Amino acid sequence: MQKKIARRSVLGSLGLMAGAGFARAADNPALAPGWQYHRLIPEAIAPEAMRLYHAGGCMYGVFGSVVAALAKEVGEPFRSFPLHMMQYGAGGAGGWGSLCGTLNGAAALIGLFEPDKKRREKIIGELFCWYEMSELPVFQPTGADEVPRSVAGSVLCHVSVGHWCKAAECDAFSKELKERCSRLTADVAAKTVELLNRNLDPSCTFAGITPAVRECISCHGEKELADTRGTMQCGSCHKLPEKHPIEVK
Amino acid sequence: MQKKIARRSVLGSLGLMAGAGFARAADNPALAPGWQYHRLIPEAIAPEAMRLYHAGGCMYGVFGSVVAALAKEVGEPFRSFPLHMMQYGAGGAGGWGSLCGTLNGAAALIGLFEPDKKRREKIIGELFCWYEMSELPVFQPTGADEVPRSVAGSVLCHVSVGHWCKAAECDAFSKELKERCSRLTADVAAKTVELLNRNLDPSCTFAGITPAVRECISCHGEKELADTRGTMQCGSCHKLPEKHPIEVK
Repeated sequence: MQKKIARRSVLGSLGLMAGAGFARAADNPALAPGWQYHRLIPEAIAPEAMRLYHAGGCMYGVFGSVVAALAKEVGEPFRSFPLHMMQYGAGGAGGWGSLCGTLNGAAALIGLFEPDKKRREKIIGELFCWYEMSELPVFQPTGADEVPRSVAGSVLCHVSVGHWCKAAECDAFSKELKERCSRLTADVAAKTVELLNRNLDPSCTFAGITPAVRECISCHGEKELADTRGTMQCGSCHKLPEKHPIEVK
Repeated sequence: MQKKIARRSVLGSLGLMAGAGFARAADNPALAPGWQYHRLIPEAIAPEAMRLYHAGGCMYGVFGSVVAALAKEVGEPFRSFPLHMMQYGAGGAGGWGSLCGTLNGAAALIGLFEPDKKRREKIIGELFCWYEMSELPVFQPTGADEVPRSVAGSVLCHVSVGHWCKAAECDAFSKELKERCSRLTADVAAKTVELLNRNLDPSCTFAGITPAVRECISCHGEKELADTRGTMQCGSCHKLPEKHPIEVK
């Protein structure tokens, strides 16, 4: 009932009428016309993403490299996207250390190009799992020194940065970390393009969550305890007693 | 040096030339023309955000309610924004439980309208702190039952949902949780509009991080230990020994 009332009241207060173009269109979040993905070359996007990292941060680098390449190839509507907004994701959203900005930018791209919720979540899942479990960064600019790699173990900037700083013995405000994050931006952009290219084939499938999380969810998920939401690495924050889950049951 | 090489190689591989419109424009992430915020009424946006939550999720609800209202008021460029993309943020990005989608949508709006990094981060900081520390949801649709409130204690969907479910004694996949998240979408949209309205006055200031986090950062931040990044509530994951930091020092 409250849904109906809320709807009526907003129609009044915003002066919206049935059939009023865009505002009404917002009720139907289907793919807007023209926003189709076109195949890109991951190896070409990676250095562009790294370059844009230095212009506007990690989320900006990932999202901007792909949209700028599509703007170059197909023009509108990509040319009109207000890219500048994507700077907000830097440092885990406004520097808060939450979702890694590279992943936020990548997930935004997946949201832009894949309207089906289930499929979108599968693609995001494959990307996020890869990020959590891979030794990164791997992108190597020609002629530059190698940088240490680490396994993030989490999609959170705070944790991912922490693990790398420990592995590299660098501080969290160092130029070395910045170099690592710029290369990670290249890696995530290339991986996202690889997944978006794969998604051009409708018969293609994507992996879901990690085996460790699947194990936790088998009890805590929707079908049994239903006491938690999310598929981030549980062990990143929760330290379980040795005998869990036997003791708990 | 590697930056120069990376730049040259991408210019070649993407076929970009100096002066090539949008792709070059991406190097300068200044506010794109026309994307100026216009004052909105928080109380009018709230029910619209709740309604759009049911169409496309939490991030979609917050972001969509504001952009649809501006599209109605000023037309382009707001009418052409590919709103559908914002569905990706639901459930903490693709259901992963990371950054709460309402906050991701709000931070995206702040990114869209505030090009100055320092000021943008202050506004995001004030919003995120409010979210972490307030008893929510407060939005009350006319004629609907009240729902329990809780303090999220975190900007992460997984933690925020967990705290509410405990307080409300509801499971994490219940219709009660969905109702709570829809009202939270209304709350965050209204708060974001309040902050964006305030930001129209350039002399206005915004609060930063919470006192508890400020205390942690005073040692772990840039000036001293420099061993962590981020300003999420530390106590949400870290349980400190009673004598910390005295023992550690």
